[in-house]
Amino acid sequence: MNLEKLFNPQSIAIVGASQEEGKVGTVIAKNIIELGYAGKVYLVNPKYDQLFGARCYKKLAEVEAEIDLVIIAIPAKFVASEISENANRVKNFVIVSAGFSEMNEEGKAREAEILQLAKEHNLNILGPNCLGFIIPKLKLNASFASGLPEAGNIAFVTQSGALAVALTDLAKAEKIYFSKIISIGNKMDITETEILAYLEKDEDTAVIGMYLEGIKNGEEFLKIASVVSKTKPIVILKAGKTERAQKAISSHTGALAGSDEIMNVAFAKAGILRAKDLEEFFNLVGFISHNKVMASNKIAVITNAGGLGVLTTDAFAKKEITLAELSEKTRLALKKILPEESSVENPIDLLGDALENRYKKVLQIIDEDSQIGAIICLLTPQDQTPVEKIARVIAKFNAKSTKAIVASFVGGKKVEKGIKRLRADDIFNFAFPESAVSVLDAFYRWKRKEEISIVSLVSDVSQERKVNAKAIIDFAKKENRHALYFSESRKLLELYGINTIKSFEINSLAAGRLELGAGFDFPVVLKVDSDEVLHKTDRGGVVLDIKNQEELEMAVTQMQGNFPGAKCIIQPMLAREMEIILGIKKDANFGSVVVYGLGGIYAEVFKLAEMLIPPFSKDAVESSLREGKLGFLFRETRGQKAYDVAELARIICDLGDFSQEVDDVSEFDINPLLIYNKDGSVAIAVDVKVII
Amino acid sequence: MNLEKLFNPQSIAIVGASQEEGKVGTVIAKNIIELGYAGKVYLVNPKYDQLFGARCYKKLAEVEAEIDLVIIAIPAKFVASEISENANRVKNFVIVSAGFSEMNEEGKAREAEILQLAKEHNLNILGPNCLGFIIPKLKLNASFASGLPEAGNIAFVTQSGALAVALTDLAKAEKIYFSKIISIGNKMDITETEILAYLEKDEDTAVIGMYLEGIKNGEEFLKIASVVSKTKPIVILKAGKTERAQKAISSHTGALAGSDEIMNVAFAKAGILRAKDLEEFFNLVGFISHNKVMASNKIAVITNAGGLGVLTTDAFAKKEITLAELSEKTRLALKKILPEESSVENPIDLLGDALENRYKKVLQIIDEDSQIGAIICLLTPQDQTPVEKIARVIAKFNAKSTKAIVASFVGGKKVEKGIKRLRADDIFNFAFPESAVSVLDAFYRWKRKEEISIVSLVSDVSQERKVNAKAIIDFAKKENRHALYFSESRKLLELYGINTIKSFEINSLAAGRLELGAGFDFPVVLKVDSDEVLHKTDRGGVVLDIKNQEELEMAVTQMQGNFPGAKCIIQPMLAREMEIILGIKKDANFGSVVVYGLGGIYAEVFKLAEMLIPPFSKDAVESSLREGKLGFLFRETRGQKAYDVAELARIICDLGDFSQEVDDVSEFDINPLLIYNKDGSVAIAVDVKVII
Repeated sequence: MNLEKLFNPQSIAIVGASQEEGKVGTVIAKNIIELGYAGKVYLVNPKYDQLFGARCYKKLAEVEAEIDLVIIAIPAKFVASEISENANRVKNFVIVSAGFSEMNEEGKAREAEILQLAKEHNLNILGPNCLGFIIPKLKLNASFASGLPEAGNIAFVTQSGALAVALTDLAKAEKIYFSKIISIGNKMDITETEILAYLEKDEDTAVIGMYLEGIKNGEEFLKIASVVSKTKPIVILKAGKTERAQKAISSHTGALAGSDEIMNVAFAKAGILRAKDLEEFFNLVGFISHNKVMASNKIAVITNAGGLGVLTTDAFAKKEITLAELSEKTRLALKKILPEESSVENPIDLLGDALENRYKKVLQIIDEDSQIGAIICLLTPQDQTPVEKIARVIAKFNAKSTKAIVASFVGGKKVEKGIKRLRADDIFNFAFPESAVSVLDAFYRWKRKEEISIVSLVSDVSQERKVNAKAIIDFAKKENRHALYFSESRKLLELYGINTIKSFEINSLAAGRLELGAGFDFPVVLKVDSDEVLHKTDRGGVVLDIKNQEELEMAVTQMQGNFPGAKCIIQPMLAREMEIILGIKKDANFGSVVVYGLGGIYAEVFKLAEMLIPPFSKDAVESSLREGKLGFLFRETRGQKAYDVAELARIICDLGDFSQEVDDVSEFDINPLLIYNKDGSVAIAVDVKVII
Repeated sequence: MNLEKLFNPQSIAIVGASQEEGKVGTVIAKNIIELGYAGKVYLVNPKYDQLFGARCYKKLAEVEAEIDLVIIAIPAKFVASEISENANRVKNFVIVSAGFSEMNEEGKAREAEILQLAKEHNLNILGPNCLGFIIPKLKLNASFASGLPEAGNIAFVTQSGALAVALTDLAKAEKIYFSKIISIGNKMDITETEILAYLEKDEDTAVIGMYLEGIKNGEEFLKIASVVSKTKPIVILKAGKTERAQKAISSHTGALAGSDEIMNVAFAKAGILRAKDLEEFFNLVGFISHNKVMASNKIAVITNAGGLGVLTTDAFAKKEITLAELSEKTRLALKKILPEESSVENPIDLLGDALENRYKKVLQIIDEDSQIGAIICLLTPQDQTPVEKIARVIAKFNAKSTKAIVASFVGGKKVEKGIKRLRADDIFNFAFPESAVSVLDAFYRWKRKEEISIVSLVSDVSQERKVNAKAIIDFAKKENRHALYFSESRKLLELYGINTIKSFEINSLAAGRLELGAGFDFPVVLKVDSDEVLHKTDRGGVVLDIKNQEELEMAVTQMQGNFPGAKCIIQPMLAREMEIILGIKKDANFGSVVVYGLGGIYAEVFKLAEMLIPPFSKDAVESSLREGKLGFLFRETRGQKAYDVAELARIICDLGDFSQEVDDVSEFDINPLLIYNKDGSVAIAVDVKVII
């Protein structure tokens, strides 16, 4: 999709332009005509001959000149024909009109019709039901929000037009400026993915902030985002975290992985920074737009109030950035210039009577300490504190130093002018110091992610294996089953090199006399094996620890009574030392997700689970295992030997390959997979559920 | 302590008053003389005859009139003698001078001397090293911060003077006003506890906000706080959360309970609201100072922007307040007056073109819905939005409605005047809607706590048991041991009705021939029992699952080789189904804390532990067990029967009694306590560590 002319048009036509007070078409026309846009403008409305002292066309078709962009602000029912008539010569449209899929079935049909036109004629359509867009640098406000923000380096893409208005107004007060503000509305044709791809090449954009309520075509979005995020930070405020009622899920891995948690995993994989709320979004975008890259995660804090220093120290808990340990040289230099009572620990307490000169000297000393990546400058307005002068000192220092500098001047009227000074000189001020720490930390984590080279992974697809797997599943489908029999699942796992417990079917026993097969010894387990009994344990479909022939016969009789006609299987009773749960969940946004976690009866109590979005490398899986919630299994813990991380990683990778090769599986659950920490023991899948 | 005259003095003397620019004594004198304080003022400084056109006394003793309060702003070394000379006639002092315990050993000695004077002469001393205090209603600024805030209903007590200056300035901008601002500095004599007790009776104070870095005499503080918090919300910003390096802890319960977590438990017990950071502190105090009590936890949200509504909905996750389910009547009424496209779900979307009248009508309809306790009014400044008019509508509604009302007008310049309007009419505005939700929730949780009657608990101390316990401990002390032998611990637990595993000492065996005592069968466990081997398992001091005579003899020989001369004991080998860890930790702030948690080798991995501060009722323990992190044990989980909550509660209560009766134990650990979910089985302590 080439959006160049959409966002940088030489000529614009406004269909539905008006001069009537309170009309959307009036606001848009005024915005485009009066705010300084340099291109050609054509106004279209059958009701008028003239508008704003210029010719008004009856129909778009009447305009003979070339038109790069058409903005449509007429009732929904007229939109399709207007586009259809001009689709051969105009390629870019913004539909601000509402009354489409957000409204009712009729609106949905209208939207489908327009989307069809877009596909046939290769059109780019923004909206419908959007605010439009604003490009401050071009003095182009192609929206029905009034005014023109100053030009900056943030592209803000939003699914809510109202939020764009509120945030732009807030941003103006905080001197945060935008390269583009784009309202995507119903995102019928142009979605967040196309915008992201466009912004990667946009020279005016250094940071991308998005407000999204949903993600269309998540897999494609992640691919693009993981490329863009390498050069431009992407900050997303994803609303709608609260889980809607999910449809019944029959796998346990499914229950372990909430869709909002998968969103987190997906964002992390693509190097996207997710803001936890509107305030953090605003702070993150604003901060990044102003800031230098941090050379290290070691932070110095300077303050004229001890209390503020202590609060800031608290905020470092559980962060990847840390309070720098000051070097001996730095400490000596500080001791020389600070009053006796001052702390030469970090946070560095300049004391309440600090004037601008003390701030200046301390900043210079810290600048020499090469390990430090960023400086947080705190200030409270004591009676003697020259707030503005200190702001100026910090700004001057910032202009020369390579370190990232942020400020938190805490107060009201007394710090107002100082903060204005800071902002004018491109220093971001946080109203409260704790936010400075969390935002620096998020930025550092993005930066670090960017440093770790993301190997471009091509999944190791085997055509032969794929065909064999498909055959197994197709057979079950032909029998109209929703799940595989154990023996089929076992074959499937075998294809992917996963060891499964041996098992034989009761049906294959000689009638009248039950006998354990060769290689089986008591104790054993009896299980029902039917696609109609998915929660076997809960429904009495499992009898454990059958010790002898007599018990076995009783169990079989009872089982056949409970589940008449159902297949039953017998398996050895294994010692269950450590149970892992492992499977594939289909996510509505991102497709297959591999989930693994601690099994056992408390799996859903402890909820120790991790998710991975395929494709992934074995290294990525190993570090997920070691550094994730199950990490304790792979370290020696109080005398218990570590489990084999490489073995489990291999199994997870195999499952990842499976998820890439086999499409027809809706849920996949190995529960439990028994793992051992004794030499020579191999992991073994004891129960497998494959829902097709 | 009677602080009436300290905070409402009829006469004040300022020792160290001055007119010299930049001196603390100058600022204080000016503040008291020029801001409108109505009482008598006496200035004292040997260097002057006159100051501010009034007589200046050479010494405090020269002032013959009665003096209610003396403010001291002279160098630290002169302070003690000045107090000593006047201690018979003046009872209230504020020492703003620094150079005391915050500085060095010399300063500590000075402080000790003054504290001695205070005790001898029954003085009330605020400070030293404090900013002083401000009582806006009396126009009394007895501090060296300039200006006089307007009078309100918040008492702000702070250990950091600089923070008082910053927050007062910030509060002024937000129209948040104070009854008292009190800087407690080194809190040598008057601490947070005395201030709290005073504020309980203070009619001008409705909310108490405290910034504390430490708590002196935590047990007393909690007692007072739990009484005060019943009528006045206490919000504390406790800084210094980060754990300092702890001294080596030999009990596992000790390792499970961090001192900051204990702080949380203590605050919750006393009904104190703990703010997570400066921003939340500010929002909480400001919000509560303005707000009505919420009649229910059901909240209505109205908005003119869908996106803001979705973000607000997200913020309700994991909160005790909930988005109200609107009644059928309310929905019908809303449907009548709202445009067709409006949502009549909660959040109620008034749409972007909502004028003040739509806000007004919707508020009136919600007012009728009696289940709703509070309304959050959201607004984004769309072009057509009459921000100030809507603010006025909300303010008018607030004046008449019994429901709690908060606002979040999101924007910059465009919402500025509207927010001013709201503030002037006593409605708190949050810059971002998510904060509104979390602050409402915190306030509701306080309110709910207040509703639950806190039974005043007198611990069930038994003198006889106390004497018997002391005898056991004293015997070990006499032998210079740091820990009890198992047999002693067993006796101790028996006194408190806790069942301990049977055990006999190897020493008591006939020499040459090891024989299991009566009632013992293989398999057994062999353990070393010595106060010098505290981590037995790690040091090879435990041999499990000894199956026969031969294995036992080998194990004993080896054990005696490893720990020559140490006592060894033999215990039955019990099936370990569910292991609990249980003990007492001595906290530096709050004394004995009972800790319980999930045991087993992963105790420190899962960190599923809860803390209780004695005294506590059995009901309180039961609800901690049921609602806390171990709650899953007391519900049936996937076929596993529930454990007996009453039995474990009884044991924890016994341990609580123990902690109240026995002083000389520094750490106490039962690890594991085995619990069962089979009829007739009782919990049993398998290993016990009592450090004295």
